[in-house]
Order: sequence, then C-alpha cells, then structure tokens
Amino acid sequence: MDLLIEQMVRELATAARPAARALAVVSSEVKNRALAAMADALWSERTPILSANALDLADAKAERHPPAFLDRLALDEGRVEKMVAGVRQVAGLPDPVGEITGMWRRPNDLLIGRMRVPLGVIGVIYEARPGVTADAAALCLKSGNAVILKGGREAIRSNRVIGHLLAEAAAATGLPKGCIAFIDSVDREAVSHLLQLTGLVDLIIPRGGEELIRTVQRASAIPVLAHDKGLCHTYVDEGADLTMAEEVAFNAKVERPGVCNAMETLLVHERVAPDFLPRMVRRLREAKVEVRGCPRTRALVPGIAAATEDDWDTEYLDLILSVKVVGSFEEALAHIAQHGSGLAEAIVTSDHSRAMRFLREVDAGAVFVNASTRFTDGGEFGMGAEMGISTQKLHARGPVGLTELTCQKFIVLGEGQIRDSSK
Amino acid sequence: MDLLIEQMVRELATAARPAARALAVVSSEVKNRALAAMADALWSERTPILSANALDLADAKAERHPPAFLDRLALDEGRVEKMVAGVRQVAGLPDPVGEITGMWRRPNDLLIGRMRVPLGVIGVIYEARPGVTADAAALCLKSGNAVILKGGREAIRSNRVIGHLLAEAAAATGLPKGCIAFIDSVDREAVSHLLQLTGLVDLIIPRGGEELIRTVQRASAIPVLAHDKGLCHTYVDEGADLTMAEEVAFNAKVERPGVCNAMETLLVHERVAPDFLPRMVRRLREAKVEVRGCPRTRALVPGIAAATEDDWDTEYLDLILSVKVVGSFEEALAHIAQHGSGLAEAIVTSDHSRAMRFLREVDAGAVFVNASTRFTDGGEFGMGAEMGISTQKLHARGPVGLTELTCQKFIVLGEGQIRDSSK
Repeated sequence: MDLLIEQMVRELATAARPAARALAVVSSEVKNRALAAMADALWSERTPILSANALDLADAKAERHPPAFLDRLALDEGRVEKMVAGVRQVAGLPDPVGEITGMWRRPNDLLIGRMRVPLGVIGVIYEARPGVTADAAALCLKSGNAVILKGGREAIRSNRVIGHLLAEAAAATGLPKGCIAFIDSVDREAVSHLLQLTGLVDLIIPRGGEELIRTVQRASAIPVLAHDKGLCHTYVDEGADLTMAEEVAFNAKVERPGVCNAMETLLVHERVAPDFLPRMVRRLREAKVEVRGCPRTRALVPGIAAATEDDWDTEYLDLILSVKVVGSFEEALAHIAQHGSGLAEAIVTSDHSRAMRFLREVDAGAVFVNASTRFTDGGEFGMGAEMGISTQKLHARGPVGLTELTCQKFIVLGEGQIRDSSK
Repeated sequence: MDLLIEQMVRELATAARPAARALAVVSSEVKNRALAAMADALWSERTPILSANALDLADAKAERHPPAFLDRLALDEGRVEKMVAGVRQVAGLPDPVGEITGMWRRPNDLLIGRMRVPLGVIGVIYEARPGVTADAAALCLKSGNAVILKGGREAIRSNRVIGHLLAEAAAATGLPKGCIAFIDSVDREAVSHLLQLTGLVDLIIPRGGEELIRTVQRASAIPVLAHDKGLCHTYVDEGADLTMAEEVAFNAKVERPGVCNAMETLLVHERVAPDFLPRMVRRLREAKVEVRGCPRTRALVPGIAAATEDDWDTEYLDLILSVKVVGSFEEALAHIAQHGSGLAEAIVTSDHSRAMRFLREVDAGAVFVNASTRFTDGGEFGMGAEMGISTQKLHARGPVGLTELTCQKFIVLGEGQIRDSSK
C-alpha cells in the first residue's frame, strides 16, 4: 500500500516536470483561455461539487470537528461562485512570465538583463478548505508553474471533483497534460513522499495552521515558502494623533480578529498612555475585547487582567489584546524585534524621523506608518490574489502573488563576444 | 568536547543576531570606512598572515594533498594584495540596503512600496581557500548582514589570522561587535551544529566542491543558497556564423577549463556539422582538448573517441569536451533540458526567432545568445564581486552579488487608513 502511494506521487511529479517545461512558454492568451474554461467548468458542475462536499461535511460532523472547521470545509452555491470569481480574477491579472526587469550594456557591448520565468513544479499542501484547490491551481497555472495539489483528508471528495474538473478543463483547452495534478489519497504518507522529491518538485507551499506548516518545514527536502504565525503590533508614538491611533488600533484588533494580520499587542508610549489608554480600552471593551496589560497599563486603567510573559508571544486570533506601556520609541522597537513574528508591524506617529526609522529598522514582511496592519494582503496591496503571506526572508516576504511564484534568470545578448580573463 | 563546540557555535550565532539588527541600519559611509580599515589591516598584517599560511601549507603537503588543492590554499604577497583589492572593490560598490524598488498609490491613498533590507545572519561554509574569508566577510558586511565564517580545517591558521584581523578592524571603526564571527575549530561537528540554528541564522551559503554543497544541503535545517555543478552547453544552430561559433565555443572550452562556467558539451546542428566540426575539432586538438563524440560526430571527424551516456552528464572541469550532432533546434533544447545543470547555456545563431526561443525556453541561471558562457560572473555582468553563482530557482539565480544578499519588505505609508472588509 505504502509503496503504491509513493509510486503514485512520484508518477504525478514525473509527469508534472515536462508539463511545467511546456507550460513555461505558453502564451498569456492561452493560459487565460484555460482559466476561463476552468471557471466555467466549476460553475456548470456545481451540483456534483456540492454533493461531494455534502458527503465530506457529513463525515466531518460525525467525527465531531469543531464548528470553525466545518465552516471552512462547507461549500454552498455562494462559495462556489466566489471560487469561480477568484479564478476569473487571476485570468485578469498581468502575466509575470517573460517580463524583462532591466537590461544594461557592458563595456564590451554585451546586453545583460533579467527575465522572469516560472519556478517549475510547485507542491501545494493544504487543509480542509476546498476553495484552496481552485485558488492554488489558478495562481500556479497563470504564473506558468505546474502544480501538485494535496488537500486535507476531510475534504477529499470535494477536492477530487474540483481537482479533476480543473485538470480536465485545462487539458481541454490545449494546456499540457499533467500541469494540474491532484493527489487522490487520504494517506498522510503521500505528503512525506512528496516532500522528498527533490529534482522533480521545485517548491513546496504549505497553507494552513501552524502545525501543518511546522511539520512540512521540518520534513521537506525541497525549499518551502511558508508563513509563520502573525504576531502583529501597533505602536502608538509620543505625539501621535490619538484619534487616528484609536481608529487604526481598533481596526487592527477588531475588524477581523481571527486572521494573521490582526493586531495582538498594542504598545503605547508612556507620554501618551494616560490620555490614550482609558479611551482606547473603553472602546475595546464595548467591542467585547478582553484586555491584558502590563503593570503600567493596569495602573492607568482599572480592572485589566495582568499580562503574563507568554502573552507577548501569543497569537490570540481572537478578541483578546495585550497592552504594554513603553518608555521610549527604542523600547517599542526592541519589543517588536523580540516578539514580532515578522508578518506586519505598525506605528502611529506624527514624527517624520521616527516614521522613517520604523520603516527602516522594523524587520517584517510589511511595515506600516499610520495605517492598520489589516491591509497586509495581496489584494489590498494591489497585487491581486495571493498564495499566502510569507514571513520568510528568502525569495519572498509579505503577500505572495503571481510575481513571487516566478524567479529571474539572466539573459545575455552578444555578437560573438569572448572572454579574456588575463585582462 | 562536542558539547563545548555546540555551545561555542551557538554563542557566536546568538551574538550575531543583535549585531545583525544593529548593522542593518548602519550607513553606507560607516560600512565603507570599516571595509577600508579591513583592507588596511590585511595589508599591514600580511607577514603574520603569510606565516600562518606557511604552516597550513606545510601540513597540507605532509598530508599529501594534490597540487591543485595546495595551490588553492597557498597565499603569497600577490594574493594578499588581490584579497585587499577585493575588499576595497566591495567598498566601492553601491549599497543595496534601503533601496526602494517601486512605490505605488492605492485607491484609498495608501502608498505601498518595497524596500531592500539585509537578510540577517549568514553562515558561509567553505573549503581551504583563505581568500574566501575576506571576500565573504566584505560582501556580507556591505549588504548589512552579520556573517559566521567556517573555513576548511587545512586553512585554519590562515583563516584564524585573517578572521580576527577583519573582525577587529570592523569593531574598531564602530561596527557592532559580533557582526563578523569566525568559527575557530577544525571539528566537522561545528558545521552540523551551525546548520541546525534555525531562528538564529537566516541563510547558509556553502562555497566549494560538489560534495561540500550536497552535504550542507542535506543536513541544513536553514535555507541554503548553493550552486550546483556547471554543466554548460554551447549549441551551434543551423545557419550560424561559423567563424563566430568557432571563437565562442573555443573560448567557452579552453579559456579556463577548470571553472563552472566553462563549456562541457558542444551541440551542433546536422546541417552545419560537416562544415563546422572538422575545423572546430582541429583547433581544439591544437589546444590539447580531448574530444569525445556521438556516432555522427565520429563519422564526420576521424579519430574521435566515443562518448558514453555518462559523458553527457559529466562536468569535466578539464580539457575534455563531449560533442553531439543534433537533428533540430528542438533536439538541442531537449538535450539541454535533460543534461544541463542550470548554470549557463549558450546558442550561436543568426536566426532571430530561435534566439528569442532559446532565451525564453532554456531553464538556466544565465542564457546566452552569441557569447561565451565564460562571462557568467558577477564582475562580468557588472554586479561587482559575487558570493558564487546560484543554480537554484528560489531567491536568486545566477551570480549572487550584494543585491542578492538582501530581501525586500513592503512598506506602507498611510494617513490613518483602516480596512473595511465588508466592502
């Protein structure tokens, strides 16, 4: 059994390799036509998709998965419509492949430039969110990459229908067979095998919770593009516009607390804390936010629970906020350097020089001055759909869009130049 | 003993972390002053460097290392001068840190841009070439990264002197202590420990032979930027200018056969092979190149040994060349896709459309039209000194210069914008 799965995964990857090579040079027009066909197929076959999903959902309920899990798994006509719209949106985005980003002439008249090319074969490993199947396939295809999809076992029936629809629709428009592959197995071993296929698979992108990502990072022999948790801070600087600070911080915490770009810790300069914190905490409490504070926060606002050391490292993903009063801008920077996860960090300030220092010195995928960390998103950044938000430093930081699914090679145009290294 | 080494390596990395944070915001002026001081120190202390090197060299001779190894290890006044010149050259290169590569305005008036920032702490693992110590330290420092250097055991005395000189000179000009660290150990375990320090070290760059690189890639829990071997092809197209083809191919093979960007296999279109191969082989033979050919090559030129299947995958790094006659442009592309190592590939052609197809379709770090693959080099590309040539696809392909030792973060400038995701 295990050998069969290993063989199946290897065969998919072996077929994906020449498919990737062929797909790399397919025109945007043809890729967009395939995406349109994929969107059409999803919509016209929504009944079998929803039937398969109903079976997945029934099993997941019987296995007593929590409501949030069931909600991520469940599809209805509206959600299929969103999936379809997502694929169409990717078709509308500019194609990064073949873009030449700069070209220069050398003293010997060689013209040297950089050209964007696809990465090759991308393995996407995700959990029980069937929407990711369409999303990942569309982004990989548009960026010229073959994709091997491996979703969570609880969504296997939904993903099987969606995966096959997408692969068939792509092949029917003339795209190379094998450029969208779906691992049709609920065996966890399938992932382990995939992660060992160096030379066949160029990049692994895990999408899901912290545990999935850690497991993949630990086990993969292939480079991984991952996002860690989001532990985002908002720092309210001395002299900040406190009304603006209140709006920005409130938005960062409350607008959608369950996502990675929501604020988890609020840092406040001691000079503005007495004015700012009472009104901020009142507003947060009205929105049912539980506030946990450092001793100075608690001295300024009665009835706040004490934050423990763990609080500064906790991604609540919930209506909970830790608050710390800091003695200086530098203390805020040091706290962020120690506790931030490198996803997004914000300052609210009126001081130009501290704004510039915050931009330069804070080490995160996205650094904000006077705006909510909630904007950390490919769509909000104007990059279109995204594959996630990288908290890594290599290759891509921040939202991972189509461009980040490519790399750049050097191109050199000569007229017979040869090298003389004795010169 | 082993525990002590683990602790030593961990302490260096732990000290490098805050050093990297401080170095990230040091001005170019201060970094250039430190580089000048480092160059001065190397030159004024050349006597102790050469004495230490003489001891290393005596041991290596006693251990009967081959002449090429001894040559890489050996320093003399001229080589120290080159080392010094290399450090000064890095000082003269533009500083990539802080560069903002594009900034755009969103409909909500947010200004979003990308800013280049250092990677953090880089571990450089290399063999017995003392020059790498100065080279790697200079490139990492200029790009704002702390560096942990680990050289080969045969060069330990040379590296110890050079490493300490560089670290002291940098610290004396006010750079953060710990931004240039040198692992003063000949124990191989030191490398294994270094490769496990995720969270402390951001990137590992191995520099050396294939075995070192494979070992590091297999063992590292930290992302690795590596160059594989260089198996470079030159393809002489139907209708090519055969005089140009001869010059370019001859240069690619003969000018310096022992380096990764030298040609290993020559592909020739069948229509030009009868004209081209006899004169090409004659010239190669005059330069003492051993030619191994496919059956059609052997039929055209007498006295050529038969190339085996292994030849197409062999990086000779020597005056040996395998030659294959291909029936079409497509066959050449397929041969390169199957056997190329992704370092550099060249076509000699007069046909514009095939030149463009070669540029787009060949998957390598550098793709050449009508020029020698020998130009694959940071200096020749106008990027200044390089840390090596990446054959990876993630993060950087081709020559790795200062820019490639940085990453880009997003910066967002607002005036109090908040997000409303219900819209």
